[in-house]
Amino acid sequence: MSTAMTPDPAAAEQVRADDRDHVFHSWSAQAHVDSLPVAGGSGSYFWDYDGNRYLDFASQLVNLNLGHGHPKLVAAIQEQAARLATIAPAMGSDVRGEAARLIAERSPGDLDRVFFTNGGAEANEHAIRMARLQTGRPVVLSAYRSYHGASGGAIALTGDPRRWENESTGQAVAHFFGPYPYRSAFHADSPEQESERALQHLRDVVQLQGPQTIAAIIQESVVGTNGILVPPPGYVQGVRELCDEYGILLIADEVMAGFGRCGEWFAIDHWGVTPDLITFAKGINSGYVPLGGVIMGPRTTERFAERSYPGGLTYSGHPLACAAAVASIHAFEDENILERTRKLGETVVEPRLQELKDKHASVGDVRGLGMFWAIELVKNKETREPLVPFNASGAAAAPMGAFAAACKQSGLWPFVNMNRTHVVPPLTISEDELSTGLDIIDAALDVADEHTEG
Amino acid sequence: MSTAMTPDPAAAEQVRADDRDHVFHSWSAQAHVDSLPVAGGSGSYFWDYDGNRYLDFASQLVNLNLGHGHPKLVAAIQEQAARLATIAPAMGSDVRGEAARLIAERSPGDLDRVFFTNGGAEANEHAIRMARLQTGRPVVLSAYRSYHGASGGAIALTGDPRRWENESTGQAVAHFFGPYPYRSAFHADSPEQESERALQHLRDVVQLQGPQTIAAIIQESVVGTNGILVPPPGYVQGVRELCDEYGILLIADEVMAGFGRCGEWFAIDHWGVTPDLITFAKGINSGYVPLGGVIMGPRTTERFAERSYPGGLTYSGHPLACAAAVASIHAFEDENILERTRKLGETVVEPRLQELKDKHASVGDVRGLGMFWAIELVKNKETREPLVPFNASGAAAAPMGAFAAACKQSGLWPFVNMNRTHVVPPLTISEDELSTGLDIIDAALDVADEHTEG
Repeated sequence: MSTAMTPDPAAAEQVRADDRDHVFHSWSAQAHVDSLPVAGGSGSYFWDYDGNRYLDFASQLVNLNLGHGHPKLVAAIQEQAARLATIAPAMGSDVRGEAARLIAERSPGDLDRVFFTNGGAEANEHAIRMARLQTGRPVVLSAYRSYHGASGGAIALTGDPRRWENESTGQAVAHFFGPYPYRSAFHADSPEQESERALQHLRDVVQLQGPQTIAAIIQESVVGTNGILVPPPGYVQGVRELCDEYGILLIADEVMAGFGRCGEWFAIDHWGVTPDLITFAKGINSGYVPLGGVIMGPRTTERFAERSYPGGLTYSGHPLACAAAVASIHAFEDENILERTRKLGETVVEPRLQELKDKHASVGDVRGLGMFWAIELVKNKETREPLVPFNASGAAAAPMGAFAAACKQSGLWPFVNMNRTHVVPPLTISEDELSTGLDIIDAALDVADEHTEG
Repeated sequence: MSTAMTPDPAAAEQVRADDRDHVFHSWSAQAHVDSLPVAGGSGSYFWDYDGNRYLDFASQLVNLNLGHGHPKLVAAIQEQAARLATIAPAMGSDVRGEAARLIAERSPGDLDRVFFTNGGAEANEHAIRMARLQTGRPVVLSAYRSYHGASGGAIALTGDPRRWENESTGQAVAHFFGPYPYRSAFHADSPEQESERALQHLRDVVQLQGPQTIAAIIQESVVGTNGILVPPPGYVQGVRELCDEYGILLIADEVMAGFGRCGEWFAIDHWGVTPDLITFAKGINSGYVPLGGVIMGPRTTERFAERSYPGGLTYSGHPLACAAAVASIHAFEDENILERTRKLGETVVEPRLQELKDKHASVGDVRGLGMFWAIELVKNKETREPLVPFNASGAAAAPMGAFAAACKQSGLWPFVNMNRTHVVPPLTISEDELSTGLDIIDAALDVADEHTEG
């Protein structure tokens, strides 16, 4: 166990050196990566090697729903590692089956079956993307009689029959606008009007794209990184009806919003709607072991009952990952995580965020549910001009950088995206920790206020 | 710890029920899945709940390079789980940095940096594939202001700036034929001629596709599931030269062939060639925790030094997975895995497979290196007609099914693909176990012989 708060500069320097010399980082300009070496974590906190401890208001990447070092998850991983860390997906596995059953029992409607995901296909995806970007050329050659993985790009490289049924996917995508009352694309005056107009827009898009060409509508049940956009009343139900009208499948992306983040097993449970497919990851086991999946119902299974499903991966239903998922679901119930998440959201976070909005010139909007909240920062409350421009980086993003730095200096690790900070701590956070964190955000907003026009 | 060989029919029935009712299986017609419930494993063996033990000649999916329950890997996972199971990719992590450094130090040439892969993007990939296949329609709608993952299909769904630089990837792929002396696409009479003609063919493809349009050539250093095709002399070097001539990147897919499977850290080390990018997974940590990655050199890193790399995933460089990788690399060295793999391949497997070829009417070809071997079964040694047709299933594949059943009845779990069986046991297999397994294959080939024309 790492010792919190005991400085160890030599260890920190080793981590920095290895990271700088040998690790390639996600979504980053590599020359400007300056990672914080993390020595350990417990509950809602993690700490570095220099004696600094941070209250994690980001749950890492909004995955650490049960916090660091949850004893039940740790024990389940340790026990499963000793028993049987891994087995091929074609085998039967007790923990895989149990995880699938527990998930199915908590899934809405007739969703009763789980395809677990994860694997090496992503390696090829990233390699070909790197090569294409580095050379500026589009084509990749690969061999017949090869297998390079099953995700979109990798299956196209594959030179064996597993590609055949995937060849025509075409990756055709059209984009629509979802509801976002604070910045309505539909000039709506109320949540109800936003819902109605967003549904009309989606219907128009379906009509003009051609309903008979549309397989699915996929949407985050509550939009995550792009702003914690909670659908207004009637919207989710309306999308379901539109899908039913045209035989379109509804895919609920619950990767971030699911498994307790919104105070329900799945965020879509708030609206009593059953999608055709649910995708999940992150909160299923707090990311202690990589795991994701697709939950489906009988109509999907039936399509692949007699005809082979042309996809797969080596680590599908990985026992170690599934053992952590089983332990996590039990911990949720033993500790009343869903109920406490709803309660803390309603009684602590929401009223405090409303106060911050009234108090700070920089706070344009606050919104969310469960332990999934956004504070949207603006230059001017009247015009709603964002505190920093869309997709800004460098100097243009400095006001948000200053806000984040103020949080970190006070011992809070914030989630920051564009002109927003999200309040997304572990669901196990204590009420005291939550209040402490909101105090720190309150103080850091003074820094943001300095960049407003007010 | 599960107890080997103690029948527990009630547990087996529970595993079967959960699996049948709730698990969706890779690459399968779901109505015909009949998974073997696995109760535990140790070294080269795993066992079911009915008292049956199997010698694993498939290393599960050719990932279990250090066998089941390797004590060093188990201990590393247990320790890391207690210390810090996960941390965001933007943080610095000691085990992530150490794993990257250990990999870099064992990589050919100037390859010195690792991008670790894995994650939830695959969930969306599979969901949209399912939806498209189920409805027979190509289009998927997704929202602006959404994030659905970073792999090929998922990034196209994404409605935020992370998609922008990926939009034009186009997934353009053209396929070429690689060397395969036993079934030469080039009518070659010798390995040397096969190599020469395969290189000429590849040069022709490059020429006609337009060298200035080609970003990369990706190939498995030794082709895996599609037949353990070891490149003949000069081929790999020739591809490297062709790439250099045209500024094309060479991507070595070492997902199956790497990390000791071929008796070297990377299969491509056999030919002294440095690719531009190496992809890996499986053997890096025997799949005890899902992990993959891309190894790159300074030219790739440089491209993303000042400009952000537009890709990433929540579990990149997952500490639990990296801890298992570090332990695995140390175990390889402590136990001389590379040397023993080469030696067992040369002194036990190769001579025995040559014997089988001489003895059995059904054995058309044997080939491989390290602990990576194929036995190719034919109806007729003269015509080389495969024992079962290309991509056969059901009754047409019955002769291979009978071979596999004979192996399993004798306690060996074989790797079977089309008209081949591969000899790909854990690299830690003892010489006795290896001989036992080859005896079982020898006997099972008598069953295959019955289906020949001889």
